[in-house]
Amino acid sequence: MKPSGIITLTTDFGESDPYVAIMKGVILSINPDTKIVDITHQIPAGSIQEGGLIIKESYKYFPSGTVHIGVVDPGVGGKRRPIAVLVDNYFFIGPDNGLFSTIIESQRHPDVIHLKETKYWMPNISSTFHGRDVFAPVGAHLSLGVNPFLMGEKIVNPIHIASPHPHKNNSDLVGEIIRVDHFGNLITNITWEHLSQFPMSKGLIIKVGSLTLTKISPTYSDVPEGQPLALIGSSDALEIAVNMGSAEKDLCEKCKIGTRVIVRRHYANIEL
Amino acid sequence: MKPSGIITLTTDFGESDPYVAIMKGVILSINPDTKIVDITHQIPAGSIQEGGLIIKESYKYFPSGTVHIGVVDPGVGGKRRPIAVLVDNYFFIGPDNGLFSTIIESQRHPDVIHLKETKYWMPNISSTFHGRDVFAPVGAHLSLGVNPFLMGEKIVNPIHIASPHPHKNNSDLVGEIIRVDHFGNLITNITWEHLSQFPMSKGLIIKVGSLTLTKISPTYSDVPEGQPLALIGSSDALEIAVNMGSAEKDLCEKCKIGTRVIVRRHYANIEL
Amino acid sequence: MKPSGIITLTTDFGESDPYVAIMKGVILSINPDTKIVDITHQIPAGSIQEGGLIIKESYKYFPSGTVHIGVVDPGVGGKRRPIAVLVDNYFFIGPDNGLFSTIIESQRHPDVIHLKETKYWMPNISSTFHGRDVFAPVGAHLSLGVNPFLMGEKIVNPIHIASPHPHKNNSDLVGEIIRVDHFGNLITNITWEHLSQFPMSKGLIIKVGSLTLTKISPTYSDVPEGQPLALIGSSDALEIAVNMGSAEKDLCEKCKIGTRVIVRRHYANIEL
Repeated sequence: MKPSGIITLTTDFGESDPYVAIMKGVILSINPDTKIVDITHQIPAGSIQEGGLIIKESYKYFPSGTVHIGVVDPGVGGKRRPIAVLVDNYFFIGPDNGLFSTIIESQRHPDVIHLKETKYWMPNISSTFHGRDVFAPVGAHLSLGVNPFLMGEKIVNPIHIASPHPHKNNSDLVGEIIRVDHFGNLITNITWEHLSQFPMSKGLIIKVGSLTLTKISPTYSDVPEGQPLALIGSSDALEIAVNMGSAEKDLCEKCKIGTRVIVRRHYANIEL
Repeated sequence: MKPSGIITLTTDFGESDPYVAIMKGVILSINPDTKIVDITHQIPAGSIQEGGLIIKESYKYFPSGTVHIGVVDPGVGGKRRPIAVLVDNYFFIGPDNGLFSTIIESQRHPDVIHLKETKYWMPNISSTFHGRDVFAPVGAHLSLGVNPFLMGEKIVNPIHIASPHPHKNNSDLVGEIIRVDHFGNLITNITWEHLSQFPMSKGLIIKVGSLTLTKISPTYSDVPEGQPLALIGSSDALEIAVNMGSAEKDLCEKCKIGTRVIVRRHYANIEL
Repeated sequence: MKPSGIITLTTDFGESDPYVAIMKGVILSINPDTKIVDITHQIPAGSIQEGGLIIKESYKYFPSGTVHIGVVDPGVGGKRRPIAVLVDNYFFIGPDNGLFSTIIESQRHPDVIHLKETKYWMPNISSTFHGRDVFAPVGAHLSLGVNPFLMGEKIVNPIHIASPHPHKNNSDLVGEIIRVDHFGNLITNITWEHLSQFPMSKGLIIKVGSLTLTKISPTYSDVPEGQPLALIGSSDALEIAVNMGSAEKDLCEKCKIGTRVIVRRHYANIEL
């Protein structure tokens, strides 16, 4: 895989400490020509699944050969392995704690490498900041074209965190909210593909909390300002929004990550 | 216009979602050599006027030929047009919703292009994320030197949002607060140019809320710590500040965007 | 010193205003090839010592020849001098207000230059934004290889702000908390070097607030989840943390910057 020269960073480090910049300094010291792009550093501390979702949603928009470094690493310094994952012509570098599960599970034969070759690391390895000491230098060397198979040995048992998938309950499709974005949109794990297999010739209803919606709108302005709607968002997932407002704030006080979302045929009249 | 190779981004996307990074990935996939600079992503959601002010205050500090992409786009997916604006040897790309009004209104014959040529867009256009699907790829192609007049057709009726200008009331100059910055400085729409035309040979007084100031200070430390002052800020606008403090917090509980600011000749002794 | 072409920025500007981007525009207008890296813009407004700590912790991870611009500048427009500091093959540019004291004090013969040569500045100098008008253009010219000694004259009396150093009290080592990071880790001014000189063959105890710890752990997961620990952090300083938690929130309500931290021989049984 030819490197693109781009490295992205996704962490739970926030933006007030020097940690992100230190990783960038390490990278630029090894490969001064690399371009570094921040995905986000606002993953809630230690939230492996939220970190994985953000990486999954964004990685494919970068040129192939891009190195995606993810550091949500509450087990740093313990027994968890550092890994490199090769999927879809991208590199993913980070801790083996499930951060890349949604990316690995999409592949039949994913290449996962347990990083062991310390010559691609910093000379001294702390027990608390492998972002700086292991992942940044490994990413920089990959961006220079080093063969990842020289950096460690292939493993077949990376840690797997199951991500919630929608299921059928009688004829209902039952999913959940998996992300609430900056605009207060409630993003679900029900994708356009799930819906396209759902028998909705007679219409459907969508239930979340006490809210019932009776159609999927083409865009926000399909309903009056301040009114709720369901639509297929930019990542092809069903989302609940409020036109010119925030579904999280205006609509659905108890809605949060994990709240159940039900898609039902319109004629089904059973109470939830 | 020769492109500078620089693209700036101003949005209301915040920094916790992957949306900004996705736009950067799209740009770098089209022009791997471009430099991308964030202006800010903290425009309040849907605040077209605040977005326009930020772009207006910063665009001219970049090399000519820079592409400024602005995405404050509550009407995305509806009827509003995507546009490119050519002003002062800069490109501005974004929705036709008034975001660029203050930039367009400064020109006698601005070139505004309704973007229509889909070959410069992403292959599939969502109804909710034109930042990714339209504005980022158009900006990337402009940064490569594509002629903007090939990307759509010229229009003469872009949406105009009037920005508040100071007015005369008897001999008073009446303006308002248009921005409150991170330091709590209250920035007004009264510029140095307005003041230079104001008869202040005998001095002036400045009134905002219950506060009266009797001079324009050269800098913050002109007054003791914790004391209020008026000065001409870095964007040539009159601002109200507190030395080593925050005018917003310390001074003026009711001061906010839209609060009236009055400049009066010193000898005028009429109560407000 | 050969420039690396990299410029870092550390400020108290926040990320909602256009000020940081304006500095970047100024830099790129002078040196279009420079790489600009944000350290942080979330230094609390006017907190010179916190700004200095962040720069000190990060600067050495960048390639030599990097220009570090720091703007925490409450005295802007007053009498304070603009300076350039040359230390360790790095340039530091900013106000002479103590921001670089910890960096200067590490040197026997530091080169500190009072910036005076206005041809390396913007044509017009505001009294409120020297980040834009002085420090950004000076940094850009340094990144192009301009000799800093042509930019002003050497001084030997830069403003010095003493940083807190640990002291001995009987046989105790008494330090303090100097930074609380995004994860709530309490970072002290007691370094590994201080501890290595401390007689701890029989063990030691660490006291902060009402908390007593009896060892230095190798990493967070050395103690059960939710339990406190002391460890040597990634910057070689003693820090107090909570495994999978926040020492700041979970542990130590009154702990903040300046709170005393005591290291004592284990057998010493005197009450504090």
